[in-house]
Amino acid sequence: MAQTSLKRFFNPRSIAIIGASTDIRTINGKPLHYLQRHGYAGDLYPVNPKYAEIAGLTCYPDLKSIPGDIDLALIVVNYKLVPAMIEQCAARKVPFVTIFSSGFAEAGEEGKRIQAQVARLAAEAGIRICGPNCQGAVDLFDNTAAAFSASLDPAPFLPGPVGFVTQSGALGYSIFNMAQESGIGFSYVVSTGNEMDLDAADFMDFMLDDDRTRMVFAYLEGIRDGDKFIRLAEKARRVGKPLAVLKVGRSETGSRAAASHTAALTGSDEVCDAFFRQKGIIRVDDIEGFIDLATAMKGRTPLPRGSGLGIVSISGGGGVLCADTAEACGLTVTALKPETTEMIAANIPSFGSPANPVDVTAQAINTADGFANVIQAMLADPGVDGLVVVITMIVGEPGRRMARDLVRLSQEAEKPIMVAWTAGPGLVAEPFAVLSEGNVPLFHSPVRAVQALAKLMHYGTDAERPSSADPGVAAAQVPPPISDDIEKLLASADRTLTERQSKQILSAFGISISRERLARSREEALAACEEIGLPVAMKIDSPDILHKTEADAIRLNVTASRQVGEFFDEIVENARAHKPEARINGVLIQEMVPAGVEVIVGINRDPQFGPVLMFGLGGIFVEILKDVAMRIAPVSLQEAMKMIREVRGYPLLAGARGRVKADVAALARTLVKVSQMAVTLGPQLDQLDINPLIVLPEGQGVRVADALMILAGK
Amino acid sequence: MAQTSLKRFFNPRSIAIIGASTDIRTINGKPLHYLQRHGYAGDLYPVNPKYAEIAGLTCYPDLKSIPGDIDLALIVVNYKLVPAMIEQCAARKVPFVTIFSSGFAEAGEEGKRIQAQVARLAAEAGIRICGPNCQGAVDLFDNTAAAFSASLDPAPFLPGPVGFVTQSGALGYSIFNMAQESGIGFSYVVSTGNEMDLDAADFMDFMLDDDRTRMVFAYLEGIRDGDKFIRLAEKARRVGKPLAVLKVGRSETGSRAAASHTAALTGSDEVCDAFFRQKGIIRVDDIEGFIDLATAMKGRTPLPRGSGLGIVSISGGGGVLCADTAEACGLTVTALKPETTEMIAANIPSFGSPANPVDVTAQAINTADGFANVIQAMLADPGVDGLVVVITMIVGEPGRRMARDLVRLSQEAEKPIMVAWTAGPGLVAEPFAVLSEGNVPLFHSPVRAVQALAKLMHYGTDAERPSSADPGVAAAQVPPPISDDIEKLLASADRTLTERQSKQILSAFGISISRERLARSREEALAACEEIGLPVAMKIDSPDILHKTEADAIRLNVTASRQVGEFFDEIVENARAHKPEARINGVLIQEMVPAGVEVIVGINRDPQFGPVLMFGLGGIFVEILKDVAMRIAPVSLQEAMKMIREVRGYPLLAGARGRVKADVAALARTLVKVSQMAVTLGPQLDQLDINPLIVLPEGQGVRVADALMILAGK
Repeated sequence: MAQTSLKRFFNPRSIAIIGASTDIRTINGKPLHYLQRHGYAGDLYPVNPKYAEIAGLTCYPDLKSIPGDIDLALIVVNYKLVPAMIEQCAARKVPFVTIFSSGFAEAGEEGKRIQAQVARLAAEAGIRICGPNCQGAVDLFDNTAAAFSASLDPAPFLPGPVGFVTQSGALGYSIFNMAQESGIGFSYVVSTGNEMDLDAADFMDFMLDDDRTRMVFAYLEGIRDGDKFIRLAEKARRVGKPLAVLKVGRSETGSRAAASHTAALTGSDEVCDAFFRQKGIIRVDDIEGFIDLATAMKGRTPLPRGSGLGIVSISGGGGVLCADTAEACGLTVTALKPETTEMIAANIPSFGSPANPVDVTAQAINTADGFANVIQAMLADPGVDGLVVVITMIVGEPGRRMARDLVRLSQEAEKPIMVAWTAGPGLVAEPFAVLSEGNVPLFHSPVRAVQALAKLMHYGTDAERPSSADPGVAAAQVPPPISDDIEKLLASADRTLTERQSKQILSAFGISISRERLARSREEALAACEEIGLPVAMKIDSPDILHKTEADAIRLNVTASRQVGEFFDEIVENARAHKPEARINGVLIQEMVPAGVEVIVGINRDPQFGPVLMFGLGGIFVEILKDVAMRIAPVSLQEAMKMIREVRGYPLLAGARGRVKADVAALARTLVKVSQMAVTLGPQLDQLDINPLIVLPEGQGVRVADALMILAGK
Repeated sequence: MAQTSLKRFFNPRSIAIIGASTDIRTINGKPLHYLQRHGYAGDLYPVNPKYAEIAGLTCYPDLKSIPGDIDLALIVVNYKLVPAMIEQCAARKVPFVTIFSSGFAEAGEEGKRIQAQVARLAAEAGIRICGPNCQGAVDLFDNTAAAFSASLDPAPFLPGPVGFVTQSGALGYSIFNMAQESGIGFSYVVSTGNEMDLDAADFMDFMLDDDRTRMVFAYLEGIRDGDKFIRLAEKARRVGKPLAVLKVGRSETGSRAAASHTAALTGSDEVCDAFFRQKGIIRVDDIEGFIDLATAMKGRTPLPRGSGLGIVSISGGGGVLCADTAEACGLTVTALKPETTEMIAANIPSFGSPANPVDVTAQAINTADGFANVIQAMLADPGVDGLVVVITMIVGEPGRRMARDLVRLSQEAEKPIMVAWTAGPGLVAEPFAVLSEGNVPLFHSPVRAVQALAKLMHYGTDAERPSSADPGVAAAQVPPPISDDIEKLLASADRTLTERQSKQILSAFGISISRERLARSREEALAACEEIGLPVAMKIDSPDILHKTEADAIRLNVTASRQVGEFFDEIVENARAHKPEARINGVLIQEMVPAGVEVIVGINRDPQFGPVLMFGLGGIFVEILKDVAMRIAPVSLQEAMKMIREVRGYPLLAGARGRVKADVAALARTLVKVSQMAVTLGPQLDQLDINPLIVLPEGQGVRVADALMILAGK
């Protein structure tokens, strides 16, 4: 879908409203009413055989009677009539249709059938559809309100830099109204309904290309096409526009309810969350979290380049509250340089605090430049990437002066400044008006100011940043090819591969496995032992025996050559006894991997996002604590390092409390390789479980001690 | 301090303002101005030799010239003059004084000296002091504004059920203003300043006794007297009034900043947090968290009796968002009874959802009683302890009707109903006014509505509930006495007790220790082994050798009698070699405790709260994961069980994944006993570390394998 064409969807030169009515209290009457109310400048064609005229406009009995071209048709008729209307649209070569009507896939079997019929007709005619079961779209800069929510009552619109896509019409448009009343300007709003054709990602993609949109926000209940979203997220980072998402369905109950409510597949929220984190999509958990973020991005707020926070407060308590929140959000309350502290000390009374959080005290009211000087000194400190300024109860002229200072400083600053003024809008109306006109991000809660800035700071620093200097990423662009041997192995193997087969494949992708030989006789076993060196592990190799311990067909830590022959026989006999019909390839002779930290690396296939890489520490960490890091494959080396550091058990790898440091770098490279292998193997790989992978001491690499691979569709 | 007397502090019959001024822009002019503005009904005596009259009132040159009795004196003069003013107050038998002036302990050495002098003078005269360095107090029901914050500008006050105590004047009064503008009514507000005499707990205690106060909120930077707060918290639960606290200084930076800002000791936030949880004090992390809580308690909101949440939404998305938040807050999204679901299904369209979260769909606008019927059905379900109702964009008459329904239902209901109406106050002004007049808790964010209700639900269910049926609690009331033997042992011991001494004391308090004997010769060692039975552990017993492994003076798992003599000699020799001057009592012969789960139990002494009980699992859990539960001693059996369940490693004790279930009941009893012992021993016990305590399989009890006790002041 070419992006430019959606311009005519949001800002069409002409609109037909099929099923228009004179009653502006109904869904049929509202779209025309709102289009007129907000001064839509194009041609409007109400269509309804019942009327000759609506709201001063000629009303047409059908589409073919309309004199001019139609860029957009809005359909507000009973769902059963919609296919016929699409045929009329096709005849008139209408490029875009928004279907407000409900009764489709969300309503039951009949609705599903009609929706499929509509989709077929539209696709044949090359018509792009928004909806059905949606509330329509608004282009605020161009005064095009092709929608019916009561949220469009207030006029004029407040246009601005936020593009908004919502999978819930009712909730979405109510968020729009709350945000507009909070002073948040929008470029576009669109409710996507059942997403029969155009989906949330299509609209977001268009907004990323739009010059007037600086930030895209989406309310999502499910992601339909993971690949499309991955490309979207990468584009958002390329063009430098933050993508923020409120995705519901985090909880089990919520996810179930979302699945029943929407026609979209909701997928695993854990995977979705991993994807957001990996691709630098800002996730918010509340309507107000979104409004806060948009507030933080107001005016010309530059994106912060790091996570060092400066705090200036006129009341000690406000500064402490900010510092608490900052640490909880993973920000650093910057230790200021001595020059900065000196400069601040010269501008505040002796009972203030020149250290961060800076307390300028209420005396700030009485000095002309002290307050501004302090803020300037903070902004000049290289460790400060953004500032939160807390003001409590300052009213009248001192309040207005502070507000004017803050407007001036914000306009000059190359770092973001958030103001948290803890007072009601009644008592401090004038200073608030000054800040609002000056487009300064204004909060009433210091906590929310810090949280919003933290999201921007993490956005600036956290996400996967593709760079040619990162070999992991570079390699990830070109997945390694599959060799003929591996092709053959995959073709001939059962659905569940043996340990040996799984390891052969891992090895083919450059992943270090324990040294091993297959022995088909006592003699071969002895020879293998000599080659590998004692001690060894001995395990049955059979596609029919996956639980070797259960079959008592495994011997670990074999230290003497004299035991090898005897163990060989025992293992084979036990295996036969366990499963007489088992195909037995022989006994696998493996090196005993020296001591290291045991970790688990896995791949699972997500229906939306494809292969998902999983990492965790062995033992209680994954089993009891569910201490797992996840990412969509492939991952870069940088991202792999983040996964490793993100698990709670990381100190065990890092050498905490006198432990030996593990080879974290080799582990990271292994994660990258496993993720690349998953991409290369594609959908045929259903599941991989490397358990354990032994991470040896620094410089000594890693070794796959056991692995299990399951193929799909066998 | 008798509570009734503080009534005259908040609502005095007469007030003298020492240092009053005609300039209402100054701190000197404001108190009189605000008292008059809000219609204070008692006698007002401005005191200032410079004026004959202020604001139509006679101004007196000093206190002795005032004709009537003075209940409260406000002091607004330079800090150096304050002692003289206190002397004047003493001469006039003024019972209460609020000192607004700053320059005292918060400002430096001279201020500290003068503050001490003022404290002495006041104590001698029996004067109770609020402040210094505070912003004063307000009694909203009685229109007494004895304070100077600009937050008192709006008139009239909105009186109501919330009592508010703040350790920060500036931040506190700005929160007061925000809350009043949000429709939160207060009974009292007081800023406590340096708490030279009356502290936050004193004022909170008074408010708990006050009939017009239903909930007490405090902004705290530090707790001065832990015992007083413990009694306060217990009283709050007794009288059934929620106590909510915003305590700053959670983070390291924040805690440091708070300590430098306030004259109060801040103490450990972790301990404070444990105390809040244990005693059912609601902790909020944001100004708005407090406003939300007060909103939730509006009108006649009954306290919920459980944590089962019902959700009714007119938009699927809103319900899902609530369900997500509920699970994150630890609430249960109740599975409704079949009768309830049937009743709901009869009142909503077929494409709605009759399961919780219930989606009544936007059709709710068009039916007369459906919406109310659904809410009534939900309220009647025994699994629903409280309800959140989400409304999106409903305006005009349908909106007004819903609002009226909600007012009626809230007034009748015996369960709390929160309304989350996701719309701006501009567009939905009328329904909001109906809800506000009807005192219905109204939120604009479903997330915040659920979070606020969750705090009330946890308040109702979570805290330690003393009950005679709980032997732990009953016993905790009467700490076990110390025997003469133990008295002697404590008196004669070094500061750091030996393992044997520590265990003797634990054993005296009924805590199971490993069986052990002290052997002073090879022969005694052999005899002990026979008595205890092999295998045993052998350890040096010396007050001078605490790190036995370092001295190589320990032998574990001794399995043969023939080794005992030899090991005895080795241990003694190695100990002598390690520390030639060491006092050696002999060798401790201990049973080898059978396998179990190793846990750590400890006591640390907190400067505010006294002995703090610590519990965690051994190994990586405490060391790497800092996975620790804490409580103020003593704990009840119920609270001990909560500690055990609260650590992340709990599944290891509960028998996760085929593990043996550990004797959790015996562990809980041991925690209770250790906590009681700590209370009995009192301040002389500085630290106790039981590491490890072995928790044996269910029914087999626990065993202290090693312990270290450190006494204070030796």
